[in-house]
Amino acid sequence: MKSENISLPEDSEISSDKRPYVSQAVIKRLPRYFRYLRELIAEGTMRISSGELSARMHVTASQIRQDLNCFGGFGQQGYGYNVHYLYAKICEILGVSAGFKAVIIGAGNLGRALAGHTMFAKRGVDVIAMFDVNEQLIGSYIGDIPVLSMDELENYCRTHPVDIAVFTMPKEAATQVAEQLTSTPVKGIWNFTAKELDLREQGKVVESVHMGDSLMTLCYELCRMQETIRDDAEEEIK
Amino acid sequence: MKSENISLPEDSEISSDKRPYVSQAVIKRLPRYFRYLRELIAEGTMRISSGELSARMHVTASQIRQDLNCFGGFGQQGYGYNVHYLYAKICEILGVSAGFKAVIIGAGNLGRALAGHTMFAKRGVDVIAMFDVNEQLIGSYIGDIPVLSMDELENYCRTHPVDIAVFTMPKEAATQVAEQLTSTPVKGIWNFTAKELDLREQGKVVESVHMGDSLMTLCYELCRMQETIRDDAEEEIK
Repeated sequence: MKSENISLPEDSEISSDKRPYVSQAVIKRLPRYFRYLRELIAEGTMRISSGELSARMHVTASQIRQDLNCFGGFGQQGYGYNVHYLYAKICEILGVSAGFKAVIIGAGNLGRALAGHTMFAKRGVDVIAMFDVNEQLIGSYIGDIPVLSMDELENYCRTHPVDIAVFTMPKEAATQVAEQLTSTPVKGIWNFTAKELDLREQGKVVESVHMGDSLMTLCYELCRMQETIRDDAEEEIK
Repeated sequence: MKSENISLPEDSEISSDKRPYVSQAVIKRLPRYFRYLRELIAEGTMRISSGELSARMHVTASQIRQDLNCFGGFGQQGYGYNVHYLYAKICEILGVSAGFKAVIIGAGNLGRALAGHTMFAKRGVDVIAMFDVNEQLIGSYIGDIPVLSMDELENYCRTHPVDIAVFTMPKEAATQVAEQLTSTPVKGIWNFTAKELDLREQGKVVESVHMGDSLMTLCYELCRMQETIRDDAEEEIK
């Protein structure tokens, strides 16, 4: 696919100045801009106006101007945004160019789905190892990623430059694995288990993917849709 | 695991009145309450004060009171919330008791990870079939879920009560599969592909899980942490 080949910005393309201050609300929206900008780059688009971007993203043009102007007004009136520059800037702010390295804990279906996903490479994250307790998996490779024994996890994270541990093992093991990582230099946990983890006191950042929450949001929307249909039908009978 | 066995509320436990109006902001937070209430039920807790819930959830007690009071003041001053009643009420509002049925499209690693996940059952959603183009998978079972041919998708969704289609196939196929579903009664798409889908005109709700966005949020937090450490070190040198 064309968009897989978009290179991440080189260090030289990014100013070495301190990153600008961007509010949390804008930060939350930047990954979405990142995705749309990659699409534009894949299509060969060099410049885009806030109006065009607005139509694509279903966000108001004024919201876009507000979001993007807060880290340097690189949109020019009547001329639009430079897509490549904007992409590089967002990559810089979000840490896409930071060269983080990750390990995946759990080589089951979810771990393997993540290991084979282009998402990491697109965001500049390198998955260097996986860990599991299953003797039959230990020693094998998922793509070019080796599956190692959980017994080696602590030592591996001390002797390799691991920034992120991805938790895909069963929920019941989450607390224990988090403890194993306490004294290692691993600073980020990407948590797919339903276990709530608070590791601020250990100096670690946890970002959780609560897939179940998303499923519930969908169920709620479906209920609402059914109610609207029912209400409309009742209105008609009256 | 104990908490897997928590039964969903029976219809009789839920009032048949129209569901109360709850603001979008509160709706977004309810799935998180759902998870904590399940934990409390698993522990055998019958009542909880907003203060205790606040300490567990890292949310202010006043936020909790505001969130939960807006659909009926079932917390009593100095007496706390009835955990089971609150759980049943949230289930009702979120459509957990609606009995939705789902099919998973794509029987690769991600599809299989989802098929084997307790998340669906916990939220009252029944996965009844999977679909794939891979001849070697068609006719097999993932757990007790049959894998059918993609050629059968449209007909299956017309002849079975399917509410939700879970998209786990490659991004490139997303638009085409969405088109195949246009004329079927499927009303909800749970989208794990990175493809943005807008199917409002077709009368369908799309809820997307953008795992990459979550990864970027983590990378951003890691960058910020590194900057703080660097700034502190610079301060010390001065």
